[in-house]
This record gives sequence, structure tokens and C-alpha cells, in this order.
Amino acid sequence: MSRYQDVNAVKSIGIVGTGTIGASWAAYFLAQGFKVKAWDPANTWKVKLENFIESAWTDLEKLGVPEIATPSNLTLCDELGSVTEGVDFIQENAPEQLGVKQKLFRELDKTAPTSVIISSSTSGLMMSEMQENIENAERFVVGHPFNPPHLIPLVEVVGGELTAAEVVEWTIDFYNLIGKHAIKINKEVPGHLANRLQAALWREAVLAVQNGLASVEDVNAAVAQGPGLRWALMGPHMIMNLAGGKGGLEQMLSHFAPGIQGWWQTMMETPNMDQKLQKVLVDGINKEAGNKTIDDLEKERDTRLIKLLRMLQETK
Amino acid sequence: MSRYQDVNAVKSIGIVGTGTIGASWAAYFLAQGFKVKAWDPANTWKVKLENFIESAWTDLEKLGVPEIATPSNLTLCDELGSVTEGVDFIQENAPEQLGVKQKLFRELDKTAPTSVIISSSTSGLMMSEMQENIENAERFVVGHPFNPPHLIPLVEVVGGELTAAEVVEWTIDFYNLIGKHAIKINKEVPGHLANRLQAALWREAVLAVQNGLASVEDVNAAVAQGPGLRWALMGPHMIMNLAGGKGGLEQMLSHFAPGIQGWWQTMMETPNMDQKLQKVLVDGINKEAGNKTIDDLEKERDTRLIKLLRMLQETK
Repeated sequence: MSRYQDVNAVKSIGIVGTGTIGASWAAYFLAQGFKVKAWDPANTWKVKLENFIESAWTDLEKLGVPEIATPSNLTLCDELGSVTEGVDFIQENAPEQLGVKQKLFRELDKTAPTSVIISSSTSGLMMSEMQENIENAERFVVGHPFNPPHLIPLVEVVGGELTAAEVVEWTIDFYNLIGKHAIKINKEVPGHLANRLQAALWREAVLAVQNGLASVEDVNAAVAQGPGLRWALMGPHMIMNLAGGKGGLEQMLSHFAPGIQGWWQTMMETPNMDQKLQKVLVDGINKEAGNKTIDDLEKERDTRLIKLLRMLQETK
Repeated sequence: MSRYQDVNAVKSIGIVGTGTIGASWAAYFLAQGFKVKAWDPANTWKVKLENFIESAWTDLEKLGVPEIATPSNLTLCDELGSVTEGVDFIQENAPEQLGVKQKLFRELDKTAPTSVIISSSTSGLMMSEMQENIENAERFVVGHPFNPPHLIPLVEVVGGELTAAEVVEWTIDFYNLIGKHAIKINKEVPGHLANRLQAALWREAVLAVQNGLASVEDVNAAVAQGPGLRWALMGPHMIMNLAGGKGGLEQMLSHFAPGIQGWWQTMMETPNMDQKLQKVLVDGINKEAGNKTIDDLEKERDTRLIKLLRMLQETK
């Protein structure tokens, strides 16, 4: 019999670290009807977290919140020891520093019952390094969300060398059960998968500016007015499946793969991110943004993102 | 005074080649209220074109068609010589073969008045090579749409060595005037810009499968359930501008650029597209598609694409 309870039995979740990612996770778990206990070592975290949840709740309601869910299911803990008490799952969101995470993991491992799975939001660190010298290392796993976690469905799940296979499966099942789209990453690599895909695109986008191919604004449009519209609807391999006519991906590969391999050979450069290039990028963005502040742009993005997510739900 | 008429004066457009891209352009121009003359050397092109326009018209109406627009503004021409007669602009959509395009360009140049700008939909050929040895080479330009052109706003405009600068500007202005989002590509490179960005992402997506990082289906989800949702709303540089907190792109670059440069160093591989890898990709797509045919998937994509475009229009 498994040491871990059924994913359906989870009622209460611990949030360790309530910065941008942790606060967003807290709002999401509350909106799915869970009890949430939170803790953070910062001074003013409590009021910041409550304000964030209040503001995110309006957005979450537009996507559908069950009646039993309420922000008042949140408990603010004064110490790390109490956040692990009585919870069925822990989501860790500490700063991206190996030493900080290692120390925190050791403390969590001492206080949380061994039946509780602990998932780390890390975007850049390796679980194998973070879980070294921990007694119950097998229950630590990476569950990397995509910003903002309360809106974007993707969660990348990857285990370290010492993580139990059943913990990886449990964590995928749990996220999927509560409305996320969890995927399994089979190897530990820098940036997991989605951030690598994003970095690959951004590299070519930076090179286009560095090499004078197009302006910053036009490079943005080359995505958002073109292929970006399809990436919201399907992934890169499925797009190629529909680029081959009625013969699908097989036909596409036989017609176009040699040509694209030729392009790849011309795409082996890495940008030189010196001060001059950084200035060109920043000036280009400021020109495109015009009078809009970062707050304006964020609000515009989230308004549209919620409408997009609703449309995708409704047409499923 | 310019040899070319004002972009506002264009009333009639010639479509040369009515395959997938040409037919889609014809539908779009008709839906913007233009008269369209079309010609194709194939046998059954007339009925195919009329069927396509009838089917596309329903979609175009959902995005807004002015009252004066009607599919009956289409004239089917029996020879190339008549498609160039009395039109104010020509969109060329012949097969992607240099010899075919060169021959066609020479014929078009002989019959079309020199005041008519001729824009090529080529996705892969260089205008400088296509316009060689043509008397009025300066009025030939690339206007590369993104499939399907009647729905996707992006058009990439790039001139060859002999293209007049004012022709490039005219063509950008014209596409923008009629509801497209035209961008200027300053150099001739394989794949222009958007297809290069797409190829850069796909390379990493293929490598993720080749290297066993994730399944085909999970790689698709890593885009469509994650960063792809944002790429429909804004381009890669603007996304980075919102990844830096209130300090914008400048702060993002100083915090994250060194880390991402490290990832780029681990992303210098090019997939080996052998039969084995192609089979893994095709099997993965077939598994994900399940019972859905290519027609089903296309219909699903276009239904959602139209809803997405409407949402973006309404929130502009």
C-alpha cells in the first residue's frame, strides 16, 4: 500500500513562501475549495498576500469558483513549524538560491509527516541537488508553474534522482485533478521544458534585432499577429501536423523538413547581450509601450488572458 | 510625383495563382470590398476557388465584412494577360520554384502597367533572385502572409536589391489600410522572420522529443497550456518586459539575461531528422489526435482562431 493518501483526499495545502508565485498558488488553491495555510519569513507578507488574493479572486471568479471556495479558508502562520501541521500537500516557493532551498527542505522534512508530498515551484534549480542529505528525499518533487500560476494551466513535474516514481505520478494526478494541465518532464535540464522553448524563440527574436532584420516592435508583431495566435490553440508539433495538408505530419516532414533543416543551419548564433544591444531592446519596448505603464500592460494582458482561457474552456 | 497611385485609390486586385494561399487572399480582398480578378494555369481551379471563397465567407463575416463587399466581385480570367488588365495591385501566389516565379514575373512585367505594384506571397525565395533581368524590377516586392491569409493578420514585407524603397513603404501602407498587420523586414534571409521564429521554437520542441525530455503530446501542452497563451497577446520582447516586475525589460535583462545566456549555451544542437525520429513524432501526433481527422483538427483550429481574433478586436 502506498504511503501517500489518495489525491482526492487532499483537503488542506501548505504554502511556503508567499512572493509572486506563492501568493498566486495560494489564491488558486483557495479558489479550488482547499484550506490553505501560508508562511513567509518576510516582514509585511501577511497584508501583501491578503491584498493579492483579494485582487486575484475577481479574475478567478470569471473562470469559475465552486461555492464552497472562500478566501477565508486561508490561515496565516507565524512559523514554518505550524504551516506543515495538518496539511495534505505542500507547495514551496522560496527564492531561487540552492542554499536557501536546501536548508528549507531539511526543515520541512523534519516537521511535515512523511506521507505529505512537497512540491517545489523552482524554475531553475535541480531537484537532485536540492534533495541531497534529506531523510525523506523521495517525497520531494518539482511542480513548476507558469506565471501567473492562478491563471496559466501548465505545471511541469520532474523528479530528482532520489524522488520516488510514485511521487511524480501522484503530483501529476493531483494537479490535473484540480484543473491544472500537468506534464511529465523525464530529465532534469536547465529551464525544464517550457522555459527552454521560450528561450529558444527569444534567442531568435533577439538575434533579429541584433542583426537589423526588424525593429523590436515588428519582431513582437511577427509573433503576436502571426504564429502566436496559433500557439494559444495548439503546440508546435500539432501545428506542423496541420501544415502538411491532408497528409498530416508525415507529409509535412517529407515536404518541408529538409528546407527547415537548412534554416536551422543558419540559426546557430547566440546573441551578444552587451550594453548596446540591451539599450536597443529597452528603447524599442519603450517606444512600443508609449504611454502605457507596466501596470497598464499587465492589466491588459490579464484581461485578455482570462477571456482567452474562457473561450478555450467553452470550445473544449 | 510618385509613379504609384495613392493606396486609398486601389479598387481592383489581380490574383495570380489560386492554390491555398492565392484562394485565401482572394477571399480576403473580396471581403474588404475590392474587385478581384483571378487566374491560375490549373485545370479545375475555377470551381475550387469559388468553393473556397463560399466556405471562407462565413468565417470572414464573423470578423466583419462591409456592406459593399460581395463574392460576386470576383472575375475568373482565362489567361494571364487579362488578369493584369485594369487592376491596381497584384498578389502573386505561384509554386515555390525559382524558375517558375522568374518566368511568371517577366510575363507579368510585360502586361501590367508600370504603375501597378506586384507583391509575391513567397515564403522561401529571395526577391533579389526572382526579379533579375526584369525591366521594371523596382515594383516587385515580397508580401508574405501567414496561413490562412484570410484570418491571420501578419504580412511580412521585404524588398529585393532592385525594389524601390517607396514600393516597400507603399505595400506596407496598403496592407495596413485593408486590415492586415504588415511589418518591414530589412534584409533577405531564408524564412523571412516569423517562420524563422517558428523554426527556432520547433527545433527545441523536436530536440525535447529526440532527447527523451517529454512526449510529443506533453511538448505540445508545454506551449499551448503555457507560454503560447501569452504569445497570442504579445510578442517575445514584450513578454520579457512584463517578466521583470515594475522595472520592466531593463530589470529583467539585468536579473535574468545571464541565466538565459547559460541556457542558450546548452541549446546549440540541431535535431537529426532521421526515419526513427520522424516515426516518433508522427506516432506521438497520431496518439494525441486520437479519432480526430485533419479536417476535424482544422475546423477546431479555425473556430477557435475566429473567436480569438474577435476577442482581440473587441479588447483593442
